[in-house]
Amino acid sequence: MVRAGYPEHCSLDDARKILLDEFANSQRGTEERETLRSLGFILAGDILSRRNVPHYTASAVDGYALPASATSGAAHATPVVVDSKMFSWVNTGMPLPSTQGADAVAMVEDTSLIEEGTASRLKIFRSLTQGENVRAVGEDVMSGQLLACRGDKVTPALLSLFLCAGVDRVAVCSRPKAIFIPTGNEIVSSERWFSAEKIEAGLVADSNSAYAASMFSSWGYQLDVGPILADDPDVIAEAVSNAARCYDLVLVSAGSAKGRKDHSANVFSRLGRMLFRYVRMKPGRPAMAANIGGTPVICVPGFPISCAVTLWSLVYPLLKILSGENVTEDYISEAIGVRNDIEAKLTVQHSSPAGVAEWLRMKCASVDGAMLCWPLSAGASVLWALAESDGISFLPENSLEHPSGSSVTVRLTRNVDFSRRLLFQGSDDPAVGLLVPIIRQKGADFVIRPVGSMAGIAALGRGEAHLAAAHLLDPSDGTYNTNYIDRFSNGRNWSRRLIFHREQGIMTARGNPKGIFCFRDLASGRVVFENRQPGAGTRVLFDHMLKENGLEKNDVAGYDRISITHLEAANKVASGVADAALGIKAAADALGLDFIPIAREPYELVFSERFEEHPASKILMDALESEEWRESVLKMGGYEWPV
Amino acid sequence: MVRAGYPEHCSLDDARKILLDEFANSQRGTEERETLRSLGFILAGDILSRRNVPHYTASAVDGYALPASATSGAAHATPVVVDSKMFSWVNTGMPLPSTQGADAVAMVEDTSLIEEGTASRLKIFRSLTQGENVRAVGEDVMSGQLLACRGDKVTPALLSLFLCAGVDRVAVCSRPKAIFIPTGNEIVSSERWFSAEKIEAGLVADSNSAYAASMFSSWGYQLDVGPILADDPDVIAEAVSNAARCYDLVLVSAGSAKGRKDHSANVFSRLGRMLFRYVRMKPGRPAMAANIGGTPVICVPGFPISCAVTLWSLVYPLLKILSGENVTEDYISEAIGVRNDIEAKLTVQHSSPAGVAEWLRMKCASVDGAMLCWPLSAGASVLWALAESDGISFLPENSLEHPSGSSVTVRLTRNVDFSRRLLFQGSDDPAVGLLVPIIRQKGADFVIRPVGSMAGIAALGRGEAHLAAAHLLDPSDGTYNTNYIDRFSNGRNWSRRLIFHREQGIMTARGNPKGIFCFRDLASGRVVFENRQPGAGTRVLFDHMLKENGLEKNDVAGYDRISITHLEAANKVASGVADAALGIKAAADALGLDFIPIAREPYELVFSERFEEHPASKILMDALESEEWRESVLKMGGYEWPV
Repeated sequence: MVRAGYPEHCSLDDARKILLDEFANSQRGTEERETLRSLGFILAGDILSRRNVPHYTASAVDGYALPASATSGAAHATPVVVDSKMFSWVNTGMPLPSTQGADAVAMVEDTSLIEEGTASRLKIFRSLTQGENVRAVGEDVMSGQLLACRGDKVTPALLSLFLCAGVDRVAVCSRPKAIFIPTGNEIVSSERWFSAEKIEAGLVADSNSAYAASMFSSWGYQLDVGPILADDPDVIAEAVSNAARCYDLVLVSAGSAKGRKDHSANVFSRLGRMLFRYVRMKPGRPAMAANIGGTPVICVPGFPISCAVTLWSLVYPLLKILSGENVTEDYISEAIGVRNDIEAKLTVQHSSPAGVAEWLRMKCASVDGAMLCWPLSAGASVLWALAESDGISFLPENSLEHPSGSSVTVRLTRNVDFSRRLLFQGSDDPAVGLLVPIIRQKGADFVIRPVGSMAGIAALGRGEAHLAAAHLLDPSDGTYNTNYIDRFSNGRNWSRRLIFHREQGIMTARGNPKGIFCFRDLASGRVVFENRQPGAGTRVLFDHMLKENGLEKNDVAGYDRISITHLEAANKVASGVADAALGIKAAADALGLDFIPIAREPYELVFSERFEEHPASKILMDALESEEWRESVLKMGGYEWPV
Repeated sequence: MVRAGYPEHCSLDDARKILLDEFANSQRGTEERETLRSLGFILAGDILSRRNVPHYTASAVDGYALPASATSGAAHATPVVVDSKMFSWVNTGMPLPSTQGADAVAMVEDTSLIEEGTASRLKIFRSLTQGENVRAVGEDVMSGQLLACRGDKVTPALLSLFLCAGVDRVAVCSRPKAIFIPTGNEIVSSERWFSAEKIEAGLVADSNSAYAASMFSSWGYQLDVGPILADDPDVIAEAVSNAARCYDLVLVSAGSAKGRKDHSANVFSRLGRMLFRYVRMKPGRPAMAANIGGTPVICVPGFPISCAVTLWSLVYPLLKILSGENVTEDYISEAIGVRNDIEAKLTVQHSSPAGVAEWLRMKCASVDGAMLCWPLSAGASVLWALAESDGISFLPENSLEHPSGSSVTVRLTRNVDFSRRLLFQGSDDPAVGLLVPIIRQKGADFVIRPVGSMAGIAALGRGEAHLAAAHLLDPSDGTYNTNYIDRFSNGRNWSRRLIFHREQGIMTARGNPKGIFCFRDLASGRVVFENRQPGAGTRVLFDHMLKENGLEKNDVAGYDRISITHLEAANKVASGVADAALGIKAAADALGLDFIPIAREPYELVFSERFEEHPASKILMDALESEEWRESVLKMGGYEWPV
């Protein structure tokens, strides 16, 4: 699409091609570096050896140098004995003596020295050919030999080869100088962010500078970071124009979207030539690039994940080109630091927008031999998901529907020992979260998907969890879990283990400003309620209480609002987005909320027969018995151990 | 095997286990670092968020904040119009206004602003639910939430997450301080190596320090390098004992074998407790380790490749352990920097020694859909092979015979575009070598295996080369190549292309000290001859000349000595190891030898029908026509273009 005089909304492939073609010949100059300081640089010329390596005829073993002809016919049964004038000891690497006509070396284990006073003779058990166990001059490298070509990267092996070959200095491509310019009135420097007692609403930390500089560092490059600029087109224009003069690559953070403060496109057009605006990828759509006086200037979107994918997919290959390096086919994996790719089955359906490539942050687990995966979050602003993910799935623009159970490629960015990772799906509880560091310290891993009690045992039924947890009340008989497990286990022999009882109740703001004293007050119309997702045990309890109190869903304002965890619900109340929520005492306590007790529930682990075969199951069971865990759970409040 | 009071000749797995078990609890202490300077460090404790992220209720889009209830029933056909008091503009990330009861944001594209003088009204085309397009407090991260566990590595994503979460400092495991101590009277510092006009026989460059420091640097670690020590046990003992006090990891280069100057084992035993000596791997056998006052001290063998494999297989995992990191299953690939593994067919038979693991430096090429590989050199001293290799094959100790054609795994350490790599097998000629940089600059690649004329066309016949080159005289009719090609092509339609004629002759030392004037002088008994390998065109020529002169192999001293290339043979003469060799004028000229012309030969490329389909074939053909190549060939001397 060209409407603005330059391509808009191009595919990622097109955007990258435009960018790389534009700057294909914009490598910085070359420079001479000491070989010892050239690691990782790209050679600007071919390198020829200046020396023969070795530069002398050397022994390749420890033993005796002598003329091969003197050993003729030697064997274990018929050793040959030679006179002291004929041989001399050489260590590995020592030059062959030039006297004596020595042209081979007998390994010490093929000889026996006969000491006879001052003289000595040598018994040899193996006949030698001329040159045997001898390293000829230039055997490794000959003077004038081509050692490496222009465009090669200096590796540790090349560097030490150059050294041996007498190459003390090498011409390399200069590294591009790059700068990152954060913009935005709302952006707060890390110094202020860390030191401020209270941060005003609307302000955000300048995390993109830190992320970009860290990524550059992991790629072996330096990235300067400029001061944070206000949303003023003139200020931005001056800074960008200066940077384009002094640097080889300029990254401008944010201002590329269509918000009222997004000045970057205007600034870029004013200063130079726009190359493209908007890339059909999610996140990362507002990425944009321009040529300003011959310098590439890339506008990196402000959302952290959008910033990250723009760095991986556009900045990294450009950096390679500017450094004189080739861009490999799988440059994205290289940029992200992918260790290997795995195929995994999606545990949830995923719809990818039409015509748009999509980046997903994936979590993975292996259950009963099946590799499973699920996206952690689709939000571009959610840094946690990037840090927590095991890898990235890149869904190309022509991929649309990914039904649950379909296979996707996950590019793993960390080493995971999947054989020691347990996947827990089920009822959310902060006490379960406290198990994670304990289990991790024992060398196993524990991944929690707080999907709710019902979804947890359903996942167990589908083989998509090692274990589940539930507190599902059956109002018809007042039992917990039994009837639900019967329904989902399908006759399989699942085990249950009661972990603790916990208190459920109504969480309200401290001081209970809305005056909520009993369940019926939630239907007073004065109160916005925060509910939990369908299938959550807490919601089952809430529905049961509604019925017991003769109320309907519609009587409760906010019935359709959904938090996924107790802490999330508590947080909604704490931050005033909701007035009340049903949840456990520990969550209310954690956020300093008032708590009106409603019920005491059993919280049970549910697992299949195969669970106990898992290498991490004993570590989990030990953690559940550990003093460390029990103490920290009791500290939260609202828990009781089973007697 | 325990004979010395500690295990000797252990397997690599055992050696590593002994080492890692011994120092499993020897991590250095912990330190606090600024989060912004913690990239790559291992966390020494769990990290909890200190902030809600976001810390305020924020708009997730650009649009109008308003109460969701006011949009009830809005649709494209039935827009809802709200009053100016009901809505206000918000940019993405801006806080929701606390007045007006705003609890949702209408995306700008779902609205239309009706300007009416100073007031304005908003038309909304989509009904909203409470909280829609709103980011709740703590949506990304909640205060107190576990962000990372002890033992996690600080990645760019974690680092910026910590920043957002208000974590300004983190406790990390201190990095081990490591030192490399080169030893050996024969070792010359790089300064002296570079500056000396002439290096005495027996001296070698200190390349291992540079290699080790470069590898540490590529792993993100610093390695100090001590001064080079003489082969004096007391000097070494003092240095090692000081280093063990001041450092967390000490590497001593060389001195671990059984040579007369190998003092390290005695020194280690004197100062501390030996852990093992000799590892059943090739190269790398003399690796050795000790615990000296609680500090790991590893003796790294002196041969460059032995040094390299010891660093990869023993030092790297120990470094991880000392840093508080886990050792992954595939730590060797991680250490070497492997990008991916491929399966490839060996083009040569390889015998691996019994009970010993072996490291091979592999070169690979893809011919007609088959991935081929061959080891570059088995020598532990040969640095060139490591720099030139595409990857490493690790043959475990139970693997013995690898017949030609069998499959091995190659761990690729560089990115190779195999679709653009040509494999040339055949007659050696330095002029062919000059094609490499020219072809490389055009984005293709040209790998030369100088196996000789006959082996080259045989490889072409087996589908193990894209092209061959030959100059094979048939003495029966005086023709070149035709009869040989008929034999190997098996009726296939191979093409030939005459590249040049070149002069062959006898190469002797400058001044011709042995007085060689005609072919028969080679059989005078005064002269040591350097021959070429069977199947080399030059050897075929030599055998023919022998016959013509009525001579036998046995008449020529050195007939069984083999050089693989013209330059290698010339080098043997130049360095005095041989008196004469048959070879081309260019090689004699390159090394300043005298040259007695014997024959003028056609040098032809041979290739199959499929060659021209190869993406790099045109680049090769262009290179053969290029002025650049022809000029540099003519400069060498002894070549003539076909007329």
